[in-house]
Order: sequence, then C-alpha cells, then structure tokens
Amino acid sequence: MTQYVVGVDFGTLSGRAVVVRVGDGAEVGTAVHEYRHGAVERTLPHTGEALPPHWALQIPSDWTDVLRNAVPAAVASAGVDPAAVIGIATDFTACTFLPVLADGTPLSDVLPAQRHAYPKLWKHHAAQGQADRINALAASRRESWLPRYGGKLSSEWQLAKALQVLEEAPEIYARADRFIEAADWIVWQLAGVETRNACTAGYKGVFQDGTYPSKAYLEALHPGFGDWVSKVDGPLSPLGGRAGSLTAEAAAWTGLPAGIAVAVGNVDAHVTAPAAKAVSPGQLVAIMGTSTCHVMSGESLADVPGMCGVVQDGIIPGLWGFEAGQSGVGDIFAWFVETQLRGGVTHEELTQLAAAQRPGQHGLVALDWHNGNRSVLVDHGLSGVIVGQTLATRPEDVYRALVEATAFGTRTIVETLELSGVPVTEFIAAGGLLKNRFLMQVYCDVLRRPISVIGSEQGPALGSAIHAAVAAGAYPDIRAAAEAMGRVERDVYVPDPGAADVYDRLYAVYVELHDHFAGSARGGSDALHRLRALREEVAA
Amino acid sequence: MTQYVVGVDFGTLSGRAVVVRVGDGAEVGTAVHEYRHGAVERTLPHTGEALPPHWALQIPSDWTDVLRNAVPAAVASAGVDPAAVIGIATDFTACTFLPVLADGTPLSDVLPAQRHAYPKLWKHHAAQGQADRINALAASRRESWLPRYGGKLSSEWQLAKALQVLEEAPEIYARADRFIEAADWIVWQLAGVETRNACTAGYKGVFQDGTYPSKAYLEALHPGFGDWVSKVDGPLSPLGGRAGSLTAEAAAWTGLPAGIAVAVGNVDAHVTAPAAKAVSPGQLVAIMGTSTCHVMSGESLADVPGMCGVVQDGIIPGLWGFEAGQSGVGDIFAWFVETQLRGGVTHEELTQLAAAQRPGQHGLVALDWHNGNRSVLVDHGLSGVIVGQTLATRPEDVYRALVEATAFGTRTIVETLELSGVPVTEFIAAGGLLKNRFLMQVYCDVLRRPISVIGSEQGPALGSAIHAAVAAGAYPDIRAAAEAMGRVERDVYVPDPGAADVYDRLYAVYVELHDHFAGSARGGSDALHRLRALREEVAA
Repeated sequence: MTQYVVGVDFGTLSGRAVVVRVGDGAEVGTAVHEYRHGAVERTLPHTGEALPPHWALQIPSDWTDVLRNAVPAAVASAGVDPAAVIGIATDFTACTFLPVLADGTPLSDVLPAQRHAYPKLWKHHAAQGQADRINALAASRRESWLPRYGGKLSSEWQLAKALQVLEEAPEIYARADRFIEAADWIVWQLAGVETRNACTAGYKGVFQDGTYPSKAYLEALHPGFGDWVSKVDGPLSPLGGRAGSLTAEAAAWTGLPAGIAVAVGNVDAHVTAPAAKAVSPGQLVAIMGTSTCHVMSGESLADVPGMCGVVQDGIIPGLWGFEAGQSGVGDIFAWFVETQLRGGVTHEELTQLAAAQRPGQHGLVALDWHNGNRSVLVDHGLSGVIVGQTLATRPEDVYRALVEATAFGTRTIVETLELSGVPVTEFIAAGGLLKNRFLMQVYCDVLRRPISVIGSEQGPALGSAIHAAVAAGAYPDIRAAAEAMGRVERDVYVPDPGAADVYDRLYAVYVELHDHFAGSARGGSDALHRLRALREEVAA
Repeated sequence: MTQYVVGVDFGTLSGRAVVVRVGDGAEVGTAVHEYRHGAVERTLPHTGEALPPHWALQIPSDWTDVLRNAVPAAVASAGVDPAAVIGIATDFTACTFLPVLADGTPLSDVLPAQRHAYPKLWKHHAAQGQADRINALAASRRESWLPRYGGKLSSEWQLAKALQVLEEAPEIYARADRFIEAADWIVWQLAGVETRNACTAGYKGVFQDGTYPSKAYLEALHPGFGDWVSKVDGPLSPLGGRAGSLTAEAAAWTGLPAGIAVAVGNVDAHVTAPAAKAVSPGQLVAIMGTSTCHVMSGESLADVPGMCGVVQDGIIPGLWGFEAGQSGVGDIFAWFVETQLRGGVTHEELTQLAAAQRPGQHGLVALDWHNGNRSVLVDHGLSGVIVGQTLATRPEDVYRALVEATAFGTRTIVETLELSGVPVTEFIAAGGLLKNRFLMQVYCDVLRRPISVIGSEQGPALGSAIHAAVAAGAYPDIRAAAEAMGRVERDVYVPDPGAADVYDRLYAVYVELHDHFAGSARGGSDALHRLRALREEVAA
C-alpha cells in the first residue's frame, strides 16, 4: 500500500494540513482551518478586558481545533485511506510561548481571566523593556551567547516574554510548572509526551553550547528568575526525530491511526528548507512574504553580524543553522498601496507600470526599514527613507524603489554572510512573493546570481511532512527524505548583466544611506532615532 | 474727481488688470484675460513643429490682448469713468525675454517659423548647458558680479537665453537689433518708447555697479558674443519712474485717456513689496505659491549665500534689494496630491487631517527639493528626501511633513540672511498659500516669529497700481504711495512656543539632512547627484 504522511503548518491566523505521498512528496490533499479567535490583540475573549498596547495572545483550543478539522478534511480531500498514513509532523510560528501545568494543561484553561496565563503569540511586542534589560545586562557581562543572536535578543523571544510574566504577574509565573513553545506543546497533544526541539530551544530559548543562560545571569536580571531554566529544561530532541506515537485521543481528533509516528516540533521558516531540498551547506532559502526569513546551514560556527540566530543542528542535524530576517517586505508594499495610496491602485497595476521601466530610470533609492531593521543592524528603532523624488516621480516609481530596496536588503544579508566566512552557494526563493515575477527578476539582477524556486506553494507543510516521513522511519534522515520528497526548480531566474550593472550603482547609494542612517553603529547619523524618540514623546 | 490708476499683472497663463483708487488703494474693479496660447511648450503654433525638451515660449500678441481686453473690462467692472484714470503700470514674469527689431517689433512676428525668434518664457529651461558654461567661466575669471547671484546665474536668465540663440540660431541673433525683457517690451507698447527698468536689468541682466558683464568675458564665452551689451544697453529707469505717456494706439486698446502716465516696468514678485507696505529695510515679503519668492530691501550690500540676486535700487530706489527663492512649494503639495496620491484625496481633506496632529507626532522630516534648491544651495540637481516612514505612516503625515519642509526651507533662508548681516525685522506673507491657515501657522511656529499678511489678493497688480500713482505724480515716491495705498495686517499669526520648541528639534534634523545631501558644497554626500546622473544616463 502507498504510504502517506501528514504535515500541519500552524500559522498566525489558521492552520493548514497537507497529505503527502512518502515515495515522491506529491501533495495529494490539503485543508485549512481558521482559528476561531485569530490573533487576540484587543480584548481577552473570556472577560472582555482590553489588552494593553503591543499585546498579542492566542487560544490553545484554536490549535487543537486544527487537528480536529483540517487534518481529517485534508485526508478526505486526498481520497486516501487513513490507514495508509504512517506519520504526522507539525511546524509552528515562533516564538509562540505558553505557561502550562506539569501535565501540559495550558494555564489559560485554568485561569482564563488572567491575561498572562495565555500563550503569547510571536508578535507580542509588549516585553521590549524586558528585552532591553536582557541585552544590556548580557552585553555588560559579555555573555558568550549574545553574539550568536546578532548582539541582541528579540523582545519576541522566550526570555523577554517569561520575564514579563514574572515581573507583571509573579503569581502566574509561580503557578506555571513549565513554559513551552507552542511548537512543542502541539506535539505533546499529539504524542502525549513532553519534548523540546533543538530548533526553538536554540533560536528562541538561547540554548547554546549545551546550556541555557546561567543562573547567575538570570538572577541578576531579576531576583527569582534564577530558577527559569528549571521551567524549560530537559533533553532536546533532534529535528526529524520521533517524539512519540499518536495517542488514542489524538487519533480520535485526527482520524489517523493511533500509534503512528509523531515527529519532533519545528518552526515554519526552518522546516521550509528541506521542502526546497536545501539541506546542504550554502543553500539559502528566503521565505519571502509580509516579512522575509532567510535560513541556511553552514559547516561551522561563524559570527555573522545581525543574525537572528546561529544554532547547532538548528535546521539540519549535524550542521550549524543560520537565520537572518528582513522585518518588512510585502508589508511595505502593502502599506504603500493600502495606506499611502489609499487603495486607489492595485499591486498588479503598479507592478505592470514599474516593470515597464529600465533600472535606474526613476532616480530613487529607498531604505526598507519601515518596520525596523532585523538583519544586519538589529535595530527596530529605525524607519524608512526615500531619496531622489522630483515633481515627475510617479507612484510606480516609488513602488519599484521599494521593491528594489527590499532586494538590496537581501543583498546586504547575503554579502554579510559571505564576508563572515559563510559562503552562499545557492539562493532559493519560497513564499507568497514568488508569484510576482517582476519582483523575482529584480532580486535576481540585484543579487547578480541565479534564483532557484521552491516547487510547492505549501512549503512549511511539505517540510513538516518530510520530517514526519523521517520520524516514521521511511527515510534514514532529513537529507534523504528531502532528496526524494522536496521540490525545487533550479535557476528559474538568471541575472541580466546590464541591469545588474545599474543595480550595482543604485546599491552603492543604498549602502551609503544604510550606513549613514544606521546611526552610531556605523558612524552615521542618529536622525531616525531622534525622530522616533520625539514621536514617542509627543504621543505620551 | 476721485483719481484712479490701473495695475496690470502679466502672469504665466493670463494677465490681470486692477483698477485702484489713488487716495487709499481701494481695489474697485478687476478683470482677467487668459492668454490664447498659454505657455507654448510642445509645438510652435504657426508651424506645428515639435519643440525640444525644456522649451517654453510665449506669443507677444497674447500680452497685448490683455491690454485690449482685461484693462477695459476692469474699468467697466469698476464703474469708473476712464477719464478719472491718471496712470497705468505693469509687472511681468521674469526673465521672459525676446528678440526685437529696432522699433520693438517682436522677431517672431517677422520670422514666425523660427522657434528662436519667439519670447522665451521664464521657465524655458533648455539653456542649462549655456548657464553651466557661463558660471564656470565667471568663476574661473572671478567675475565680481558672480557672488551677487549666489555664485550661479540661472539658466532662466538673459545671458543663458541669449547665448542659446547665438549658438543655436546665429542668424536670429544677428537679425535681432535688441533683446528685451517682456516687462520692458509691454511698456514700449504702452508708451511708444524703449525703457529698461532697474529691477530686471539687475536681477535678470547682470547689471551691477553701473555696468554689464565685460566684453572680454562675453567674447571668451563665445566668439561674437562680445557685442551682446549693445543689444540691451541704454539708460536704466528707476522703479516708480515715468516711462512716458500712453500713446493714442494704446489708448484705443485700453480705453484709457491718451497721454496719461505709463510707469517703468517691474517684476511680479518685486512689485508686491510696496503692495504689502514693505518699503523699509528688513521687511521681507514671501510670495508663496507654486514656488516661493522672497524679496526684501536692506541698507547696504552684503554677500548672502544662495541669493537669486542682490541689486541696488532693485526693489525700492535707494536700497539694496535682496531676492531669494524656493523652487518648489505649492508645486510639491500638488505633486503629492495629484501625482503620488493620484488625486484620490483633496488638499482640504489632507490639511484637516494634518492640522489635527501635534508637531512631531508623525516622526517624519523631508527635504523640499523636489524641484531642486534655489536658495541657499543654488543646485537644481538636488531632489526630494523623506525620512522616518513606518508602516503606520499615513498620507496626511507625509503631507504635513512636506508643508513643514517648505517652512524649514524658508527658515534656512531667513537665518542665512541674518547670519550674513541682513536683519529680517518683519516677515510678511503674500500669495496663494495664504488661504491655508494651517500652513501659515506652521510657518509661524517654525520661524518662531509673528507673520504679517498682505491685505490684497492681487498683490502684484496692486503693487503696479502703486507704481502707476508714483509715475503719475500723485505721490512723491514709492514709500509714500505704499503707505497710503498698500495694505498689510500685522501679526496675524503669532508663534506657539510649545510647537516652536518641537519644530526646533525637527529643524535640527532638517539642517542635518540639508547639509548631508547638499553634496560636496557642505562636505556631505553626492548621492542625489549620482542618482540624477544615472537617471539621465538611462533616459538617454
């Protein structure tokens, strides 16, 4: 009997299940289930309490509803006998992080009126104060793990979110037996056992060189935080490993056979790499959407400025996983069209007009920092810049300049990796922006290298399915499974040397603006920081 | 019998006549006549020949049609007996400049198929190559007049326009007995005698310290150009002087009595000063419209960086006239609304939204260089810049930032005058932007000084009428006439100290950006010049 696996991708607003043939990775069925509560950003559902600014929560039952609905629907749409399914794997947004009891019960189920009892969604940004102190103290103590994260931990990650709970709701912190990534919690629901995956532990939990941050550091951060590690520690499970077997309860939810393999948890971006066959050192996958995430494995550890993280075994066991990011990409184009132009013109129309131009014709260069800069400056206090506007500048000129700016941002990351001794041998694109062929050609010309393209529109779910196949023993490792089941089209875009020459000149201006407006980090101006400070002062 | 005068303001697309009571300056009648051919920028009317880029011509008969139509209509609308009109004066755009025969016949009437035979409108920008050579040679020879013009003559002015004729159409140049400002040509039509006014001779014709540029300089510029001065020279007439008496022919056109006083010609911006009672040293009048022109008289000569011109007797006889300019103001707002936002929102709506904000709230600073920078950098190769945009930035934020940028540009000019030893004792606003009270308050707060406002919506025509009254002998001089006939409301806007404090901080960012993007002139970046060069290279 032909064997199948199920990959489930948990996103910000919905979960998607995909049924994949083990032998060749064919995607034979899919279904999506929207979370009933979506991202909880305004009021707490159970009490109607208004949430403070920058909060973002989620409801655990929305996630298990995906298992109850999307998984059986995907199997049904595939027309596959559930008995032919040999494994299931999941990937999740991260860091999405929740306090639980010792048995895995979410604290929000027990204390539904307490906002700090809920899972904090990746985009919960209310712990910036904690993150600032985490970074200042780590820098002053020269903590060895800090350079692995571009010199700054994000306010989105475990330490900042946990410290916020401790400081603002110490009783919730005390009541929580464990804190856990949603990526691992969902596996707990499927397999009935608690596991911790190497990817989120490293990228979001600061597990480096076999250990978490020291008790002394944590206690210095806040009295009582010294016990933090006891709430997250335990053996780490390698990616592609088998977390356990599907429980009878989870079998009832999903309609899948009890006892099949449940893979160790994973992160949506990182799991996309094997889906695109990017399992060897130097194969960079850019998941291009509202923001862009760059994941790549390398042979050895290297200090690369502005990485989101460098984690051993973080993407592919046996290799160092590098992650970089651009905090605004599609979001910037959407802002321009929907907010700046008030929706009076479509992306398609602007793209068509922009595509008719020659490179350099608009005379503009922009900095793509409208949502801050993650890599390589790690500075969310930065903001967007555009130079060169004249009375003849049209909306499509600005649109094209913004597209180019994000391509220049990607080039900055690729060049920084290579200058740091991490060669990028192949650039593979994935994500929603793939559909814009004009944009892809701009990236190709700006990078002056061919671009390969993932062969799936459901990269994360396919990547999870590959992990499920490995966990089920159908392949010896992720590399072999990716070879059989992943899909990539090589060199779909090839650079136009003439365009690349012009982009080199525009990129030189971009680099100059980049370093000038980066502030003191690059010996430049702090104008953007001063404007932000003034803006916040006026708003207060 | 109550006496009246007529002021006629010749603009870019139409001419306006106003009938004014001599005793108190009351405007009792007005009429506008649109030029039949407007600004001729695409094809030559007589042949249909396509004009090269950046050309802008006009048709002399369109101007005399204003005398035939607007003047009698204004008198009729006033209900005034034409016999009660004792004088007429005119003001004109400048440098609008034409070749004529010895009797004043426009060469375009004789050679209608020759584009170089036509008047070149002020915004004819096709002589930039000539201007560049004029400036380079003058700088290398350290010509004493160069600093009076901010170190650069404009391509719009007489020398560049005339040199273009000589180089591109030597037969037209040879055929022209005289070249003359339209401001003086129209007076010739009214009074039947050729005169040259001190204002255009100084500001547009480089008449300084009693002489025009030397024959040696001109001959070095182009063989044969050494005779240039012979085509423009002759005695200069002081502003407010009587050029002559209305001829019978002009009396027939206008319906006014033959023999009444015809005043010496003038320029639209400069003639506005007496209309706003700005006749003493230190009273700066800003004529704020699509662009802004700043005119002010001072006690003595001073070298002020970036002036359009410093001319003895150039605005008020006996004083030094200073002129500065911002090459884009209302044009920038119009560009943003009409081109960038595609007209999807009105100025009024954006102004209302912008006015509801507190200063500094949008977190933006822009450079108002979308049409280049006249004062104080004298660099039309510059372009616009905006910094501080985030995904929350709305169109009204940008609109407000652009308004503020033009106010910062004005502050730069005022501070440069004062730093150069030319005190600005009063800031008087005139022009179309007066109607935007929000914008005026921004200017007031940015300048941290009260703003007085001209009491007429037809400032140039009222200013001309004042000159007519002086020419007719109703007042001994412009100062006395302005006191009786001019109108200004003092301190209509007063600064809000809190807003001014915030603007000081935004202005500090503006100054930093200004000097950075000014290029090598201020030890900054040449990025804007490189982008412009690339744009032109790609277009070629």
